[in-house]
Amino acid sequence: MSKRKMNVALIGYQFMGKAHSNAYRQVARFFDDLEVEPVLKVICGRNEENVRKAAQKYGWEEYDTSWERVVERKDIDLVDVSVPGNMHAPIAIAAANAGKMVLCEKPLANTLAEARQMFEAVQKNRVPNALCHNYRFGRIGKIYHFRGTYLQDWIVDPNFPLVWRLQKEVAGSGAHGDLNAHLIDMARFLVGEIAEVSGMMETFIKQRPKLAASDDRLGGVASSEMGEVTVDDAALFLVRFENGAIGSIEATRFALGRKNYNRFEINGSKGSLVFNMERMNELEVYFHDDPPHVRGFRVVQASDSMHPFMSAWWPVGHIIGYEHTFVNLVYTMLKAFDKGEEFKPNFEDGVRNQAVLEAVDLSSQQKRWVSISEL
Amino acid sequence: MSKRKMNVALIGYQFMGKAHSNAYRQVARFFDDLEVEPVLKVICGRNEENVRKAAQKYGWEEYDTSWERVVERKDIDLVDVSVPGNMHAPIAIAAANAGKMVLCEKPLANTLAEARQMFEAVQKNRVPNALCHNYRFGRIGKIYHFRGTYLQDWIVDPNFPLVWRLQKEVAGSGAHGDLNAHLIDMARFLVGEIAEVSGMMETFIKQRPKLAASDDRLGGVASSEMGEVTVDDAALFLVRFENGAIGSIEATRFALGRKNYNRFEINGSKGSLVFNMERMNELEVYFHDDPPHVRGFRVVQASDSMHPFMSAWWPVGHIIGYEHTFVNLVYTMLKAFDKGEEFKPNFEDGVRNQAVLEAVDLSSQQKRWVSISEL
Amino acid sequence: MSKRKMNVALIGYQFMGKAHSNAYRQVARFFDDLEVEPVLKVICGRNEENVRKAAQKYGWEEYDTSWERVVERKDIDLVDVSVPGNMHAPIAIAAANAGKMVLCEKPLANTLAEARQMFEAVQKNRVPNALCHNYRFGRIGKIYHFRGTYLQDWIVDPNFPLVWRLQKEVAGSGAHGDLNAHLIDMARFLVGEIAEVSGMMETFIKQRPKLAASDDRLGGVASSEMGEVTVDDAALFLVRFENGAIGSIEATRFALGRKNYNRFEINGSKGSLVFNMERMNELEVYFHDDPPHVRGFRVVQASDSMHPFMSAWWPVGHIIGYEHTFVNLVYTMLKAFDKGEEFKPNFEDGVRNQAVLEAVDLSSQQKRWVSISEL
Amino acid sequence: MSKRKMNVALIGYQFMGKAHSNAYRQVARFFDDLEVEPVLKVICGRNEENVRKAAQKYGWEEYDTSWERVVERKDIDLVDVSVPGNMHAPIAIAAANAGKMVLCEKPLANTLAEARQMFEAVQKNRVPNALCHNYRFGRIGKIYHFRGTYLQDWIVDPNFPLVWRLQKEVAGSGAHGDLNAHLIDMARFLVGEIAEVSGMMETFIKQRPKLAASDDRLGGVASSEMGEVTVDDAALFLVRFENGAIGSIEATRFALGRKNYNRFEINGSKGSLVFNMERMNELEVYFHDDPPHVRGFRVVQASDSMHPFMSAWWPVGHIIGYEHTFVNLVYTMLKAFDKGEEFKPNFEDGVRNQAVLEAVDLSSQQKRWVSISEL
Repeated sequence: MSKRKMNVALIGYQFMGKAHSNAYRQVARFFDDLEVEPVLKVICGRNEENVRKAAQKYGWEEYDTSWERVVERKDIDLVDVSVPGNMHAPIAIAAANAGKMVLCEKPLANTLAEARQMFEAVQKNRVPNALCHNYRFGRIGKIYHFRGTYLQDWIVDPNFPLVWRLQKEVAGSGAHGDLNAHLIDMARFLVGEIAEVSGMMETFIKQRPKLAASDDRLGGVASSEMGEVTVDDAALFLVRFENGAIGSIEATRFALGRKNYNRFEINGSKGSLVFNMERMNELEVYFHDDPPHVRGFRVVQASDSMHPFMSAWWPVGHIIGYEHTFVNLVYTMLKAFDKGEEFKPNFEDGVRNQAVLEAVDLSSQQKRWVSISEL
Repeated sequence: MSKRKMNVALIGYQFMGKAHSNAYRQVARFFDDLEVEPVLKVICGRNEENVRKAAQKYGWEEYDTSWERVVERKDIDLVDVSVPGNMHAPIAIAAANAGKMVLCEKPLANTLAEARQMFEAVQKNRVPNALCHNYRFGRIGKIYHFRGTYLQDWIVDPNFPLVWRLQKEVAGSGAHGDLNAHLIDMARFLVGEIAEVSGMMETFIKQRPKLAASDDRLGGVASSEMGEVTVDDAALFLVRFENGAIGSIEATRFALGRKNYNRFEINGSKGSLVFNMERMNELEVYFHDDPPHVRGFRVVQASDSMHPFMSAWWPVGHIIGYEHTFVNLVYTMLKAFDKGEEFKPNFEDGVRNQAVLEAVDLSSQQKRWVSISEL
Repeated sequence: MSKRKMNVALIGYQFMGKAHSNAYRQVARFFDDLEVEPVLKVICGRNEENVRKAAQKYGWEEYDTSWERVVERKDIDLVDVSVPGNMHAPIAIAAANAGKMVLCEKPLANTLAEARQMFEAVQKNRVPNALCHNYRFGRIGKIYHFRGTYLQDWIVDPNFPLVWRLQKEVAGSGAHGDLNAHLIDMARFLVGEIAEVSGMMETFIKQRPKLAASDDRLGGVASSEMGEVTVDDAALFLVRFENGAIGSIEATRFALGRKNYNRFEINGSKGSLVFNMERMNELEVYFHDDPPHVRGFRVVQASDSMHPFMSAWWPVGHIIGYEHTFVNLVYTMLKAFDKGEEFKPNFEDGVRNQAVLEAVDLSSQQKRWVSISEL
Repeated sequence: MSKRKMNVALIGYQFMGKAHSNAYRQVARFFDDLEVEPVLKVICGRNEENVRKAAQKYGWEEYDTSWERVVERKDIDLVDVSVPGNMHAPIAIAAANAGKMVLCEKPLANTLAEARQMFEAVQKNRVPNALCHNYRFGRIGKIYHFRGTYLQDWIVDPNFPLVWRLQKEVAGSGAHGDLNAHLIDMARFLVGEIAEVSGMMETFIKQRPKLAASDDRLGGVASSEMGEVTVDDAALFLVRFENGAIGSIEATRFALGRKNYNRFEINGSKGSLVFNMERMNELEVYFHDDPPHVRGFRVVQASDSMHPFMSAWWPVGHIIGYEHTFVNLVYTMLKAFDKGEEFKPNFEDGVRNQAVLEAVDLSSQQKRWVSISEL
């Protein structure tokens, strides 16, 4: 009854590193039918002191400061890329060339060109690949509307420091790639491919104090020197899907009171559906064919056991949290990789997602609608 | 202690006619400090049988089938224009030329050109004028975002008949003029003037059964003959305000489960504010300067007596309904007109509102951003 | 097509007088099929100056200061008793003896003994009678639980004055008769007759400033002299129904933040139902036989036209308010009285309601369960 | 920098065993400042096959089938008692006599007599002791009301089998000890000691199919043979606190649609507070001293970092789930035990809690108020 081992190397140890470590550590403690067991082999980061602490705290056997060395190790099966966007392409491509399975954080890359190179690398080397969109899940008929907003408020204070997520050369973009990438993934998953977009992007606070030290959440300590904010604070766009549905998508870090308000609503010819990540254990659904006098949005407790993944966790009403989405994703990915089956979302999804992100950027600059096929 | 009388002529007797009649009848029963009392003198409509019934049911002294005759009557002080949009301009202009005070339903007109003519007529004749935006009301700092959606679902069924609200030559537009006009008014009232827009408009169901008979709500009975839908089912746009705020505004009649979901959210540098017409007695506010551990959206019962108008109604928690918005508006308008003070919103607001509506239409056709100053 | 007239005399002109006046005035403006039309003949109160103003404001033809005179008038068809509880019995009995139809505010009386005398009077004189429980309305199977709370907060301030609602000799009881009477009516209407109760009653603030002047809401101006509070601030009880269901019922005026929070929940073998007066246009229902993965509480917009009374008002989503419950009640009562049919709730319901109120009082004093049949 | 080890023995491996295992495994992965590290030494249960699987799945070094053997092991520091209530006393007392630190699941025992023996055992042996009330946390003034309901619906189906939680000789009681124990703990923690109670308990379904096999959630497979339900399905009681506050507490497993609806509301002289376990990342608070026009219940995201424990987890808005309450409790307990400080809640709290539970039982049988001091 001993399980096959799968040796994991995790590149990155901050917020995402913490969440991914937890997923590998927990997945076998809750899911019974997994025939493969991930081994937390090595965690990798540039700062030796920090990565050593992370290895100890999160339960990794070894640590390393060179990702180039790690991706070449013969004993590594899976490389997990959880670093800022500017490093996704070099690491993922090297890992693919070394024949490793690859899981990459979203968005896949900082540019569409990089994303395409990454996709080519996994295709050429035929390595299993996965994109870490940890938020995914019809009976609502032909879809008319998708309405997605991902609202946060952690940088409203002008004195909040210039963390890496606010620097274009590291993060690629701001709220757009960080938050809209999630909404685009949900929209593509639930509605279909996007045909064209009209967008606008805005940076409300153009200068911020440079960063003195970061924490393992999203913030850090400000220094007294100022620096340029080079990413968007908010990005909004209208969208037309290939199947005729229309929609709007918005990400902002300037909506006071909204902490992780990743909410979308879908309206179809037979019903509607609403989800909000701040109440991620609930799902609201509306069915037009309910008897008229008892027709209304149902607040479904998605923690019931017939919902995907939930039988592995707790009795209904005993809710799960943010990190469980990573465990569920890792569970599904490990099963697929172990059986040689395709996992979705993968690098191809990453390329398509990136194309939408760039189309919005182009549209915002040129103040016109941009078709995805232009790119 | 007897009050001054103000003789009212109401043109139109359907859904809006019912709501306006109620407002004139009720206003003096709840508001003590009104020195003028409206007299329900004459109600006017084309169908004699129907207008006679309406006069009796809603409590009007007389009825007439000719608005031309009514607006010329010497004994009429105020003309209330509550007919479909294509008739706003001729009636309001005639009334203004006859020296009457005028209250006009929203949107002011079906085109910007008509709206401007109407505004000129009230200016030239110096008659008090009011626009019936019955939904109006800072401590949230510099505004970053306005996010408005007005969602309904009453025409999702493809067999819903071709009522006048679905015919461009009568209604001017569909969800756009009917619903977005309200959101534009709120946005202008609470955020400021709009500088430019990028929009899209869509008609999901292009043909519907022609109308056999209408009711006093929004529907009617379908005939077996089909006709063309000439207005939008949904209209969305991105918006940039003159003061640097950005936003999105959407109206649709295709959002199943949403009945009168007129919801907007405003995010500023010091707080946020949310309102939803379906729960119109509540207001959600968030203040960033609350102590961090008890910071959250407050659900304020707007029925408390310190809120505008509420002391005239019921004790807190005893809610008011849709028609009260009309009574409150009529109360404020009568006070202003009686004292010779300006009432807002008026025809000038109608012109500005109409300009935004048309800019969205133009933007939607040309697939580019349109500046309001272009029109 | 002229309707039969029904001449109404209203005894009382404060909060309830305002709401009842509105109901008589409005009912024919919204309901088409009413063959009888109430005439606002005379309003009656002890203070001449105040009742004169009320007659003018609320639209009554005449006013009087003697209820004895009014109930004997030949031209009066219906006597509406909207005064404090200590005057219910003498007025209602006199009206019944004079052969008048009677509508009485809740609770029917201040004591069970009075309630029984009133019931005997309407029976002996065979006069149509109605009790003004303006909050009433199964597919949820055998009922297990009723859970009702009626929470308000208008007297939390110890300086709030000693209005008549806080004096036992006038009001009979405090939160108990004022608020629990509503919950008992709903429980009896929706679940069935109550068999036994165990209760507790509490007065948190024993002394308050005497009243200098009252308003037409619930409050008034405090004087500098103190007086004894002789009614309960809160009253809670456990309940066993004759059919085996169990429940809890609570009324308090000391729940800060709760304005008119009349909320009850019913759990049955097939589903559950929740209603809250603060959101009186919504109803929450849960059906156990929904498919498991979409089972959840539905928030039903009760403003849809298939709900009782709603077709007379506005399109779905355009909500109604507190006073509409009175109009709906008056509509149903007038139809029943006009046709000689029994109207529920009536004085018999008032007697049963009063018996439960007194059983709770007795239980609270003797600290034991009290069976309704004991009284 | 290596931490002190604390060897843990866990008695029990089902639902609570799963949650406790997770807490010991995770606590050091998230909390940095813990100077002691729990070692998952041995898990113990009667069924060898099942406990072996649990040891492997949940990460325990060893397993055993004899708790008597385990509590005597020299290398064990802490005994965690997570078995049904009838076994709490023998195991906890043996562990205390062997000088072990003890953590015991709630309710402390099935009877007050047992609870007192357990408390004596930990006192006599001076061993650190803790009670596993995993739900704990003013500015709301003098408290008037506590209103707690713990509603579930997992046994509404009459064919749900007779699991151990429905057998008095194993579980002690039904909803009462399982759910009301949590509410009593919160009430004592937040309001103060309870003086007297008046209760009622009810078993709606008296017979159920006997159990064929159980799962690691709350259910199992029914056999064809019927057996007697010997515990309550629902238990409600009124309560008077020593400080003058009053309240109601209710537990039921028959409230369809309510999954883990552990909700309480507290009303004080300066504000109110609402918590619901189904939305355990949110807290509703109301402050009377807010400016009147913006006074309302605030929905506070309790996942913000200034809230206790939250800085160890995720950024605000990234919610935590049910099992985190156990991790937080284990964290606090380990810190206290390691430093020789008292941990609350402990066995003394368990005794007080049990006294309230039994007083309700007695009150229910004798149909009268019971003072806690009687027991």
